[in-house]
Amino acid sequence: MDTTTMSHDVRLDADHETAIEQVTEALAAEGFGVLSRIDIHEKFADKLGVAFRPYTILGACNPALAHVALGARPELGLLLPCNVVVERDGDATLVRIIDAEQMMDMGGFADDPEIKPVGEEADLRLRRVAEALRA
Amino acid sequence: MDTTTMSHDVRLDADHETAIEQVTEALAAEGFGVLSRIDIHEKFADKLGVAFRPYTILGACNPALAHVALGARPELGLLLPCNVVVERDGDATLVRIIDAEQMMDMGGFADDPEIKPVGEEADLRLRRVAEALRA
Repeated sequence: MDTTTMSHDVRLDADHETAIEQVTEALAAEGFGVLSRIDIHEKFADKLGVAFRPYTILGACNPALAHVALGARPELGLLLPCNVVVERDGDATLVRIIDAEQMMDMGGFADDPEIKPVGEEADLRLRRVAEALRA
Repeated sequence: MDTTTMSHDVRLDADHETAIEQVTEALAAEGFGVLSRIDIHEKFADKLGVAFRPYTILGACNPALAHVALGARPELGLLLPCNVVVERDGDATLVRIIDAEQMMDMGGFADDPEIKPVGEEADLRLRRVAEALRA
């Protein structure tokens, strides 16, 4: 997989927490809940004693799509939830939304008739999340 | 990627919560903290009103390895943390530990001189986690 296509990226003129709120709202509008949040910079400070720019990994999940996916292929939990990375980038905040279709393809599900449409639907929605954030 | 090699699998003769405790301890022994826990069956019950077998996604992270990886390639957060799926399987509990080296390769980092050794080291440790659980 070409890493340049691994995500849908949006640059927001907002601070870190405001960006996370905006991302969470945009995800909710497409049926994705944020099920996990990992503040990497805090972990690095706590565990390693090193400073790192604000960098948060959000785990987003659309329950209806996840139910179809995990019902058909239980091993797909290895690739869930859909990650959204929010990180400080100079004066702005960079948001990287995983390309769910690519993720399914790279997981070996490109030709799976049950999983392919789920990945496409998830990614259609995540692209709309990116568009909403750009607007 | 061949999905048959996407994870290191272990079957435990333990109930769901006991298995999660055993996995958490085995991960800790290799320097991985559990930074997120998603109880999929509870989400499906809450959001969809459907029953699903106990199915939990743990997000494991070795801070030192993550620091090297994210310092070199910030987009790698799209593939972190390392997932460990714990699910009920008949009378036993199935544990699937992500193959971190495969994950890096499938993310397009197979030839990245900074990331390749991190993926190898992470996977060496995760294989030892699987071995410890089997013992």
